[in-house]
Amino acid sequence: MNLNETSNRPYEECGVFGVWGVPDAAALTALGLHALQHRGQEAAGIVSYDGERFHQHKGLGLVGEVFGDSRVIASLPGPVAIGHNRYATTGGTHVRNVQPLYADYEFGGLSVAHNGNLTNSATLKQALVKRGCIFQSMTDTEVFIHLIAISLYSNVLDRFLDAVKQVKGAYSLITLTPNDGLIGMRDPLGVRPLVLGRLPGHEVGNGGWVLSSETCALDIIGAEYVRDIEPGEVVVIDETGIRSLHPFGDQGARFCVFEHIYFARPDSVLEHVPVYEARKKIGAELALESGVEADVVVPVPDSGVPSAVGYAAQSNIPFELGIIRNHYVGRTFIEPTDQIRNLGVKMKHSANRAVLAGKRVILVDDSIVRGTTSRKIVDMVRAAGATEVHMRITSPPTKHPCFYGIDTPEESKLMAATHTVEEMAKAIGVESLAFVSFDGLYRALGHNGRAEGATRYCDACFTGDYPISLVDKEGNLVH
Amino acid sequence: MNLNETSNRPYEECGVFGVWGVPDAAALTALGLHALQHRGQEAAGIVSYDGERFHQHKGLGLVGEVFGDSRVIASLPGPVAIGHNRYATTGGTHVRNVQPLYADYEFGGLSVAHNGNLTNSATLKQALVKRGCIFQSMTDTEVFIHLIAISLYSNVLDRFLDAVKQVKGAYSLITLTPNDGLIGMRDPLGVRPLVLGRLPGHEVGNGGWVLSSETCALDIIGAEYVRDIEPGEVVVIDETGIRSLHPFGDQGARFCVFEHIYFARPDSVLEHVPVYEARKKIGAELALESGVEADVVVPVPDSGVPSAVGYAAQSNIPFELGIIRNHYVGRTFIEPTDQIRNLGVKMKHSANRAVLAGKRVILVDDSIVRGTTSRKIVDMVRAAGATEVHMRITSPPTKHPCFYGIDTPEESKLMAATHTVEEMAKAIGVESLAFVSFDGLYRALGHNGRAEGATRYCDACFTGDYPISLVDKEGNLVH
Amino acid sequence: MNLNETSNRPYEECGVFGVWGVPDAAALTALGLHALQHRGQEAAGIVSYDGERFHQHKGLGLVGEVFGDSRVIASLPGPVAIGHNRYATTGGTHVRNVQPLYADYEFGGLSVAHNGNLTNSATLKQALVKRGCIFQSMTDTEVFIHLIAISLYSNVLDRFLDAVKQVKGAYSLITLTPNDGLIGMRDPLGVRPLVLGRLPGHEVGNGGWVLSSETCALDIIGAEYVRDIEPGEVVVIDETGIRSLHPFGDQGARFCVFEHIYFARPDSVLEHVPVYEARKKIGAELALESGVEADVVVPVPDSGVPSAVGYAAQSNIPFELGIIRNHYVGRTFIEPTDQIRNLGVKMKHSANRAVLAGKRVILVDDSIVRGTTSRKIVDMVRAAGATEVHMRITSPPTKHPCFYGIDTPEESKLMAATHTVEEMAKAIGVESLAFVSFDGLYRALGHNGRAEGATRYCDACFTGDYPISLVDKEGNLVH
Amino acid sequence: MNLNETSNRPYEECGVFGVWGVPDAAALTALGLHALQHRGQEAAGIVSYDGERFHQHKGLGLVGEVFGDSRVIASLPGPVAIGHNRYATTGGTHVRNVQPLYADYEFGGLSVAHNGNLTNSATLKQALVKRGCIFQSMTDTEVFIHLIAISLYSNVLDRFLDAVKQVKGAYSLITLTPNDGLIGMRDPLGVRPLVLGRLPGHEVGNGGWVLSSETCALDIIGAEYVRDIEPGEVVVIDETGIRSLHPFGDQGARFCVFEHIYFARPDSVLEHVPVYEARKKIGAELALESGVEADVVVPVPDSGVPSAVGYAAQSNIPFELGIIRNHYVGRTFIEPTDQIRNLGVKMKHSANRAVLAGKRVILVDDSIVRGTTSRKIVDMVRAAGATEVHMRITSPPTKHPCFYGIDTPEESKLMAATHTVEEMAKAIGVESLAFVSFDGLYRALGHNGRAEGATRYCDACFTGDYPISLVDKEGNLVH
Repeated sequence: MNLNETSNRPYEECGVFGVWGVPDAAALTALGLHALQHRGQEAAGIVSYDGERFHQHKGLGLVGEVFGDSRVIASLPGPVAIGHNRYATTGGTHVRNVQPLYADYEFGGLSVAHNGNLTNSATLKQALVKRGCIFQSMTDTEVFIHLIAISLYSNVLDRFLDAVKQVKGAYSLITLTPNDGLIGMRDPLGVRPLVLGRLPGHEVGNGGWVLSSETCALDIIGAEYVRDIEPGEVVVIDETGIRSLHPFGDQGARFCVFEHIYFARPDSVLEHVPVYEARKKIGAELALESGVEADVVVPVPDSGVPSAVGYAAQSNIPFELGIIRNHYVGRTFIEPTDQIRNLGVKMKHSANRAVLAGKRVILVDDSIVRGTTSRKIVDMVRAAGATEVHMRITSPPTKHPCFYGIDTPEESKLMAATHTVEEMAKAIGVESLAFVSFDGLYRALGHNGRAEGATRYCDACFTGDYPISLVDKEGNLVH
Repeated sequence: MNLNETSNRPYEECGVFGVWGVPDAAALTALGLHALQHRGQEAAGIVSYDGERFHQHKGLGLVGEVFGDSRVIASLPGPVAIGHNRYATTGGTHVRNVQPLYADYEFGGLSVAHNGNLTNSATLKQALVKRGCIFQSMTDTEVFIHLIAISLYSNVLDRFLDAVKQVKGAYSLITLTPNDGLIGMRDPLGVRPLVLGRLPGHEVGNGGWVLSSETCALDIIGAEYVRDIEPGEVVVIDETGIRSLHPFGDQGARFCVFEHIYFARPDSVLEHVPVYEARKKIGAELALESGVEADVVVPVPDSGVPSAVGYAAQSNIPFELGIIRNHYVGRTFIEPTDQIRNLGVKMKHSANRAVLAGKRVILVDDSIVRGTTSRKIVDMVRAAGATEVHMRITSPPTKHPCFYGIDTPEESKLMAATHTVEEMAKAIGVESLAFVSFDGLYRALGHNGRAEGATRYCDACFTGDYPISLVDKEGNLVH
Repeated sequence: MNLNETSNRPYEECGVFGVWGVPDAAALTALGLHALQHRGQEAAGIVSYDGERFHQHKGLGLVGEVFGDSRVIASLPGPVAIGHNRYATTGGTHVRNVQPLYADYEFGGLSVAHNGNLTNSATLKQALVKRGCIFQSMTDTEVFIHLIAISLYSNVLDRFLDAVKQVKGAYSLITLTPNDGLIGMRDPLGVRPLVLGRLPGHEVGNGGWVLSSETCALDIIGAEYVRDIEPGEVVVIDETGIRSLHPFGDQGARFCVFEHIYFARPDSVLEHVPVYEARKKIGAELALESGVEADVVVPVPDSGVPSAVGYAAQSNIPFELGIIRNHYVGRTFIEPTDQIRNLGVKMKHSANRAVLAGKRVILVDDSIVRGTTSRKIVDMVRAAGATEVHMRITSPPTKHPCFYGIDTPEESKLMAATHTVEEMAKAIGVESLAFVSFDGLYRALGHNGRAEGATRYCDACFTGDYPISLVDKEGNLVH
Repeated sequence: MNLNETSNRPYEECGVFGVWGVPDAAALTALGLHALQHRGQEAAGIVSYDGERFHQHKGLGLVGEVFGDSRVIASLPGPVAIGHNRYATTGGTHVRNVQPLYADYEFGGLSVAHNGNLTNSATLKQALVKRGCIFQSMTDTEVFIHLIAISLYSNVLDRFLDAVKQVKGAYSLITLTPNDGLIGMRDPLGVRPLVLGRLPGHEVGNGGWVLSSETCALDIIGAEYVRDIEPGEVVVIDETGIRSLHPFGDQGARFCVFEHIYFARPDSVLEHVPVYEARKKIGAELALESGVEADVVVPVPDSGVPSAVGYAAQSNIPFELGIIRNHYVGRTFIEPTDQIRNLGVKMKHSANRAVLAGKRVILVDDSIVRGTTSRKIVDMVRAAGATEVHMRITSPPTKHPCFYGIDTPEESKLMAATHTVEEMAKAIGVESLAFVSFDGLYRALGHNGRAEGATRYCDACFTGDYPISLVDKEGNLVH
């Protein structure tokens, strides 16, 4: 193992979850992380607090692999717990990068789980290392850990606020403290999601609160959705109840529109909009905007399915499962020999020839990034006998990288950044290609077109309009 | 570990795959097994032969877990290989039960992979043990191993034929021999599937043949479908080409109808019928036979999806993904505490409230076995706000256990064996319940109703008409 | 893994142990195996019987590694257990070769642990395979398993006797049967050791019997030594007590003299002779026979230590630990680079310069096999400053391989088979070299010189006088 | 896993090793650690530097287990490497405590391996945590890591000196830096050992230097002993050669006398005294001081062996191996059931009845700590038939705990702190008990009795005269 891991920062989208005030908090947290598994499949961790001591367990793999053994859950006692799912980034994976992170401070222990990305973490880290701080992980979360450690404030909440005021970025945080309870927070513009839930039937004190990246994790444990944490809001949950702070005032809201298009689970509700309905409506908008004569509407599974249902209903063209997804593709598989690579093996998707042969096919997918996957899928569909392939994309063209927590390649590798739509259609080999318009996208989300939507969402990956300053990128940091 | 494992025989449905005459035969076999993963997720194994020596690797877990490391594939050289996926049966799991099995004989080595179930294996095993044979595994396959060993014939093919003539059951076999090449076989009635494929671009000798449980595994490696192995047919593949033997004559054909309804992958073609189309047509038949006024047609994922598409198209009621399947549920997960169990946690499925709330819902599923899972799903759908729930099942009522290779509970535990349809509807809590009729089922498969279909398929699990004698069951074997 | 493992038969010296009639039989067996660890460090296994079922656990590694977890011992309930330590042979190691072996027979289960070597196992195996028996392991023990299986006798003891009458060789056997209790046996000439012990304070029935390769394993569990099992004796231990059979009559006794010289633990008593005393006396005989002027007597640890004590006492030359053994050399270590190999790294022994520099050194070792190790040790001693090195060996020259259970190289690789003593002295680089005489050796063991000793011991490795016929070797077996 | 590990500080004796200026530095380091295995068997680690990057590998277990795979060594390229063996302390064991530690600083990476104990580490840690430093391990070594990080000096060597000036304790340090080469250091009084060696045949630059806890690790790699690092000396090894600094001036020397008595390997030379000779002379002094009529002198293996040789030679009573040590006792073994515990099982030692029965026995051991082990050994010897047992100890009575790096129990648990010698004799059940006198001990080490020896050695565990202030212990630290 090389100590100097990749110097690329691990941009990542993850899932966070926390429970306060119920027995078996760690077991509920494991279930919550399981429901948030789509947000990160590389690793998972839980830290619990039993009133006297912290306990932790972390591991590489799926939640069921890391926490499937009931003895592991039993080793995490206490009525408070926080957990984290980590996204599979390229490059080395090490348990020391797995969250939640924990540190022993002068005032006692503290644990932090974090979803998103800081835009000034490298700058802060450079200053902290210069000051003598020693970093153990590659995560942005450890910047919080050190900022809290060196804060001159005496109580934990003040140190926490001191720390978050120094960072810039798009993030949700859940912090577990012995004295100040569970602290949840969303970044000032609310780019990344965080919701509050309540567990019924727990009448002891003010107990039974839940914090989660998405509502689907409330459903799995039978918690009621209370409300979204507001942009810039800090909530403090302890035995006296729940308190709310707004240390950043009201700076507006710019929720990540790509959570609706791709990232969130279809049964979640984001900012009061059900994801499934939003995707169906985007599909319908696409049918209206760029309808084409065809025989079947076929989704690229799984994210394209609701949009294809919406497209088919709007267009009256039959919805068919023309591509079968192999659910058993894990995180590793055969590194094929050259001979096999030349066979054009598709590990993840198979064409359903019975549906595609001799048909004019409308493919519905969520986005085109590098274009290579789209090309492979189109080739596969055509090899199965499709006579025409029309690609419809449920997002505008992805022209800019995300610096706010979603792992995207640099701009030069984004197909839409260097090609016109016509060039893209040719490159991926389709008869026609269309992206949803900004107006259509925001109408589908319940807004009056692009003008209104753009003020409420972050769509920087489509527009390049970055609402949070990119400190590290604009500085002269040399990594 | 207890040596006396469960005395219940491990009824199992598995997948088999074999390749003859190409470089990297083991790598192609791993890919084939990956495409057949749905037929068995408990364990996987490959045996290859390099012209001089046999090589093997077996392990518990998914194909990607057992064969994901390229060094493992590199340790399996040779132009011939056979592989096996094992189904997760209840009870202990041991590597020594993982197929293919291998034995050293007087004439050299031989390896066998087997899918299905022998109905006289216990009777044969008792006689073999009495004769002094020592069994190492709990598998039916080992009966073949010993029958071949004690055969008085001198060459391998004759010994193989001697052995298969003594067994009764529903099975497909692939056997790897050093001198007689690759031998494939389907049981005399062709209950279990086996297809023949050909790899293009391999012009050396007569090479490049493939045997597989399903056509989807031909697709993944780019092999052409040649034909189904016929009921009772033995094919011998070696450097002189492919020969066909019919040691049992023509006894008719009784293909397992449940492969169409549930077991096979939707992109496979079984006995010339595309599985996806068959399922869609069954859904349409259901809509015709037992239509009901409703707002949405919702499949129970994944097997119910094509049927729901067919039902929705026929009935003109919108198809919606009202139930989200969690793809990350592995083979193990948290053994919940009582508290959590009471929360009614659903690890595998989640209700999509946005689609279900306030709606009259038609649920489409493939079968009802014990009824407990159906009850849980109905409760979940209702809890998400459905005002009515109508269940439509794409098979006739399952009233009898399968003794031919599919793991089913004993008759007393089958809900349809002890309840009328009305009682079942009440027990699972639906407004209405209907099963497809035999006429509808066989029409969907292209036959002229029940009379014609019943002579071509095994539907014993619905009818109790067992086409192969149940020797062990009817004997007085004491386990 | 290659199925065709090394065709060299795994000649091996191992340890066997069995307990009858006490609670926690498996725990006592683990302790017994621990005391017999020097007889085999490659693998260990235990099979227990609880009156209804057999239980087993086996693993590669030391006894403490395989059975160190109390949960493992708890999984082996019952008042009867047998165990086995396996010697580290060259070539592949597989759990399926680890003893005790177990088989399910027509009459029920049976387990066998075996120490030694059969001289007709290949011949028997060839006939058994021809008959249709399928072998799973490379061990001689499996020959017993099959001979018992095919025996026409109806009860287990008769089948056991039928089987042992067909084998030739030097071996001790412990067999665990449900109905006939614990069966212990020594080969007709008693080449390999087996002793009977009794556990005090167990007054239930006739319980509390122990069988063990050596007495040191009785000591560790507080069992009293009762007597040696006699050559060719079969003892049957059950609730009616202990019975003795002599199916081979009295063929004389030829105990392995190398057990005294090297193999046994110094605190064991073999055939009424304490091993430590025997070794000291051999050292004294060497001093008398081939005394030389020197400053220090230095043992090659560990087996040479008692002999060096005896030599030093007889010669009045000081005993010194001039060579330090590294106790932490495990079964694997760094495969050194060429550079390191050239440094002449000694992983196992270090010279103690303070004792050796400027001294005339008498080195006492147990034997010279290939001569390479002796050469390295002599070089090391000289490099530490010894002015003269005189090697004294506590056995006669090893000129012939052992076919009776001790792993030795073939004759052409034995230095004494191809060199005179003078040539050997030159080759290993010593001022003088002497081996104990046969007269001296047998006097040390309490006999009146060679004539008497040779009739009571097997010393074939020194004399080539093989008392048991070498069937496989003399036949025309082609492996 | 509980984050709040045992609050007892892990007093430990370990081994350190470093190589500068040769290819395969990591391979040589693994060999050196192997020779130092007796100083720590819990864990091992190596960090190498290839001129551009640091590489590390650490693991729990013996050196051969952690570094036995040549691929591991291959993953540690470069001409410089340092390594560490960790002693098995009670309480939890975690890889994050395994040394060498590594940190990324403002100026680049740095790695530290440390043997010994700081007496003000808790005090320093408290101040560092207050300042905002976050500790990841429980080791004293991490105090160095943070002191270097916060130092205001600009170059690495100045920061290193700034750090060591703040610590108090008994320690040896090896530090690997990219720019300032390999830094070795002994504490100001030289309590813990560190020697300098030179690898011959490496003529490139000034290369081929070795630092090691003991000389036995120089021998294994063929390095020449150059000299002991002096008390308080800092040596800096780089391509310009070797420089020596004495930042603490000359404060005298107080080498740990227990290294001679027990800890070091008998083939090492400490402070110009061969350990084996020292122990023999201590044995001879004991024979002179407290001779007794007896039949045999028996060492408690392994540390008692040289002393017993010396005692036997002086007293003319025969030396005999009356106790056999089991070399296969690993770090874990069976947790015995109560029944087994009552059998008085001795896992580690066995009595050699042939030597002991009917004899008056002098037992020679290195020390008595709690007295429980001594009692067991005496009981075992007596049970084997000894008629008298006289215990002779090669150290003065251990009355005080060591705070300088050797793991000892607190004072109240030391038998000699609460019993007279007569009471001890009675408690352990011997006819007589004697300890070597201080005069005898220091004579054996070449000094003119106690007065001279006490000024040159640390013997605080016998006298309570602690030469280095016990800052943490005397302060008011609350853990």
